[in-house]
Parts: sequence; C-alpha cells; structure tokens
Amino acid sequence: MTHKGVRRERQLANSLDERDFAVMRAPASGSATDRDLPDVLAGNGTAFYAIECKASGGDPIYLGDDEIEGLGRFATAFGAQPLIGVRFDYCDWSFFSPTEIITENGAYRVKQERLELGLRIEDL
Amino acid sequence: MTHKGVRRERQLANSLDERDFAVMRAPASGSATDRDLPDVLAGNGTAFYAIECKASGGDPIYLGDDEIEGLGRFATAFGAQPLIGVRFDYCDWSFFSPTEIITENGAYRVKQERLELGLRIEDL
Repeated sequence: MTHKGVRRERQLANSLDERDFAVMRAPASGSATDRDLPDVLAGNGTAFYAIECKASGGDPIYLGDDEIEGLGRFATAFGAQPLIGVRFDYCDWSFFSPTEIITENGAYRVKQERLELGLRIEDL
Repeated sequence: MTHKGVRRERQLANSLDERDFAVMRAPASGSATDRDLPDVLAGNGTAFYAIECKASGGDPIYLGDDEIEGLGRFATAFGAQPLIGVRFDYCDWSFFSPTEIITENGAYRVKQERLELGLRIEDL
C-alpha cells in the first residue's frame, strides 16, 4: 500500500476507535496464512466489521476478485460483516458491501459520484 | 517479545486457523492507539477471543496489571472473551481467563503445575 494509504488506514482506525470500536489493523507484511486478512477488523460488542481499505485521488477504485473473495472468506469464518471502505481525496469514508459494488460485467468498482450510496462511518 | 515468543504466537495463530477460526495477529510495533491490542484476535462465527500470549521455559509466567487491564478493555469494547494463552516448553497451549490466574495478593501468575486447569485449544 502507498504511504498515503497507510496513513488513511490509520486515520480510519482512529476514527472507529473514537466511536467506541475496538480496532485491530492487519500487520503490514502478509505471510502465507495472512493472505485473506482484511486491513481493519473492528468490533463494538454487537457489530463486527472486516474492512478492506481503498483510497483514490478521484479515479474509480477497482478491487480484484481475489481481494473480494479473501475478504469474504475471512469475514465469514470470523463472524464479521465484510466491507469495502473507500476514501476519495477531500471526501469522507464511505463503506460498501461487496455485492453493492459489482458492475454489470462482474468487476468490483466504486466511482466517486456513487460515494453517497455507501454507509458513512456514523452508520457503522 | 522474544524471537521464540513470536514464533510460538504464529504457531498458535496457525493452530486456530486449522480449527476454522479466522485469526488476526497484532502488528509488531505498537503505536499509541495500539496500546491495548491483544496479541491474537480470533473468531469462528460464534465465539470471539482476544488472546494475550505468554511463553516460558518452566518459570512461572507473570502478567502486569497494565497488560491485564489493556486486554480487558479491548475485549470488552470489541465484544470478545479475554484469554491469557500460556505455552511452556514441551507443553501444549493452555488458556485462562484473567480472573482464573489472580493470586491471593493480587498478582497475575500461571505456574506450570496448574497448566491443566486451563482450557485447551480444542475447547475454544
């Protein structure tokens, strides 16, 4: 991940922490068993979220099938809800289920103009 | 943590993974907001465990009040059960609740001869 991506992921973890979630971020280097790890795992006693984080300056954000499948596997095994957390420059975080961002031809994509369709951090 | 401690923690994560838990290990370096992070966070869809890992060649294992309190804070906020995972050389992992290892004078200690009183990994 880019330096900016890491900083934003840390900001997200802090924002969730301030909203009374306990948060664990995945270790930076992934060993073989870490392949499916989400970037952020958060719980508040009732809701559990496995979050894959993506940032963009403005271009559409694409996720690979392997990322989406890995996130789904981890979330299902753990007992968490899988979310894609997207953050465009000058915008707030927005969160989508994998099924919400699949295009007609089976790609996983978030365009900036569809940001408002996602959950906001206050909705988690 | 020692190199041996890290290796054992990784073995525990793998063992839980083989038992159908999804597992996240805490990043090695703790930033200010990471203070309360457990070593391992595991879930299997119904049970969630925040685990602090300790290894010893044979000497009793002691935990500080701050470690126990941090573990409790994270576990409560997240919605997980706090566990101390202890591993003595040539022995299997054994897991205790913080309240099970408090001594008469208020210290947190696990002696090797009391290992069998803990939960085994199969019990999680």
